[in-house]
Amino acid sequence: MGIGKAGLKESKSPDILVVALPYPCVASFVFTDNYFKAGSVIYSEGIARERERISAFVVNSGNANCGTGEEGIKHAKMMAEQVAKLLDIPKEEVLVFSTGIIGKSLPIERVLEGIEEACQNLQPLDLKRASETISTTDRFPKYSFATFDNLETFGFAKGAGMIHPSMATMLAFVFTNAKVDYLALRRMHERITERTFNSITVDGCKSTNDAFGIISLGEVEADLQAVELELQKVSESLAKQIVADGEGATKVIKVSVRSAITEVKAREIAKAIATSLLVKTAVFGRDPNWGRIAAAAGSTIFPIDPFKIEIYVGGYLLYDGKPHDENLPKAKKHLEEDKEVEITIELNEGEYEWTYYSSDIGYDYVKLNAEYTT
Amino acid sequence: MGIGKAGLKESKSPDILVVALPYPCVASFVFTDNYFKAGSVIYSEGIARERERISAFVVNSGNANCGTGEEGIKHAKMMAEQVAKLLDIPKEEVLVFSTGIIGKSLPIERVLEGIEEACQNLQPLDLKRASETISTTDRFPKYSFATFDNLETFGFAKGAGMIHPSMATMLAFVFTNAKVDYLALRRMHERITERTFNSITVDGCKSTNDAFGIISLGEVEADLQAVELELQKVSESLAKQIVADGEGATKVIKVSVRSAITEVKAREIAKAIATSLLVKTAVFGRDPNWGRIAAAAGSTIFPIDPFKIEIYVGGYLLYDGKPHDENLPKAKKHLEEDKEVEITIELNEGEYEWTYYSSDIGYDYVKLNAEYTT
Repeated sequence: MGIGKAGLKESKSPDILVVALPYPCVASFVFTDNYFKAGSVIYSEGIARERERISAFVVNSGNANCGTGEEGIKHAKMMAEQVAKLLDIPKEEVLVFSTGIIGKSLPIERVLEGIEEACQNLQPLDLKRASETISTTDRFPKYSFATFDNLETFGFAKGAGMIHPSMATMLAFVFTNAKVDYLALRRMHERITERTFNSITVDGCKSTNDAFGIISLGEVEADLQAVELELQKVSESLAKQIVADGEGATKVIKVSVRSAITEVKAREIAKAIATSLLVKTAVFGRDPNWGRIAAAAGSTIFPIDPFKIEIYVGGYLLYDGKPHDENLPKAKKHLEEDKEVEITIELNEGEYEWTYYSSDIGYDYVKLNAEYTT
Repeated sequence: MGIGKAGLKESKSPDILVVALPYPCVASFVFTDNYFKAGSVIYSEGIARERERISAFVVNSGNANCGTGEEGIKHAKMMAEQVAKLLDIPKEEVLVFSTGIIGKSLPIERVLEGIEEACQNLQPLDLKRASETISTTDRFPKYSFATFDNLETFGFAKGAGMIHPSMATMLAFVFTNAKVDYLALRRMHERITERTFNSITVDGCKSTNDAFGIISLGEVEADLQAVELELQKVSESLAKQIVADGEGATKVIKVSVRSAITEVKAREIAKAIATSLLVKTAVFGRDPNWGRIAAAAGSTIFPIDPFKIEIYVGGYLLYDGKPHDENLPKAKKHLEEDKEVEITIELNEGEYEWTYYSSDIGYDYVKLNAEYTT
């Protein structure tokens, strides 16, 4: 990797990251499905759709290159061309990512100089420094790695769940040393995305710049199930780090919906609870308010039976057709003392489950989002 | 109407309202589509489904009769029977509504006594006092009336958009003196509900107890289009009063999506902007942050073209494929000085439009919702 400076961040810290792969590697990328996409996303999606392998990618932080019209796409292309020229690789094997403020033109000359600086000082991948370079409002760098027999899996990320929408975005890059062909990688990538980055929420908002990629370095042969499990572990760790970084967040909330009749039902109900402002503020207030959880659970298009469901907080039964007020003190203690708050709903109708991660919401959320000005 | 006290509210103010109609009147009611419904909702929905006319309704505030199991339904039935007995009408012509705390049994003996007190002192309908009696955390009573030729239309409501979910709910009752048959009333009721109470949001949460009814007093013959227009006006006024009462709200936000290719598209995009926490906190911070509006507009399942849309705040163009920073100061002034903030998106693709009302979100929202404890 190489690091450069284009002066895009107020802190004037490094804001250009180039990751050069040793050879063209099988890679799968997913991008935000927000229709108001950044120029870099439009450009890179076009490339990723045509190519199964990439040789490098470049990330700039501090400016999202979004809402910048045709010029934004042109600037993304110029960034790819600059990397391709300096690394002597085809420009169709270079992806471009941006994160930062929306609606401001990239100072493209400075960005191209920053890329040059990065490409002239290539060094081994350092997950922590890579995360720091692509970070904007993050409170801490996000990275994870796992080994299992001959398998090595690692990744880095940035983001705080679009908490600071004009300065944030979720970007994650995960690598496996295993050899995986494109179609197999794509399929596991889609499953992992749904269970990890698409199952976290801070404020329910979709960024204009989100992207998540998995790259196969193709160094070892391995069982695909093991590869997927390792990739999922690393991706989930990165996703949880993003939730924990929600500005003003004091708790990670794990919402599990169990014994549902279909997976989509479990997921939608888990999402409704995880995104409920009222549940989030209750957790911030350390209040085991099962009424809010019940109301959120009942608010999706999927019917629930108020007489059949069970609601647990921290493993303590609070409702099963009638209130269990005797368990409120224990649930309150869980909310006060444990870093990760567990909310579980048993629907008692089938065998599917889904877990969603969220964070609580406090004064600092409002403060940060109200006081940030364009 | 009659007013009684069952001691359900901390303030010990009146909490039982009985509205006795002069004869059985054509009435249409809609209830929350939350599946975690209160006992009163389950009971009244059953009645309203079978009957085209009602003779009376009773509302208790301070206790939602929700999460209370089979007992909750039994208590609602007992309330209807008490009204029927005292007013000498069939119990199948009495509807029951509750609003207040979730998960606590109704002290039914005191409620039945409160109903007796109310039925013994019937007096003409007083919209302000009716609203006060059914209110919980409301900061002000909500009522509206309109006259047009021989048409009289009036209504009262309570609610602050499920801001305080264990103590709130939206209830609205609107009356027309016009004669309207059930099917016609039902159809206009459904249209009005979509354009008014279903197009407001404070925190995107659905209450377990919401209900909205329209009652035709059948006193005068009138053109149905005029009747509907008057009913819509009064209903919209009540809906906007609820938005303005959002705890901690300092501004009403009017989100209009125009020139859409379908109505549902206009509506979903308006809803996405109106419910976006990031837009709400930006308004609280008086920040004309069009990037947040664009990101919310792009987040639905309906495609938008970033190069074709226009974004206005207070009528000032801020984006039309590229930023118009020259208008930011004027938009900021609008946010600072006007009570109702106007956000408008032109999609430039068709002729449909939808308007959604919302409120901003500030420190007091978090404070009230975090500090309220069960």
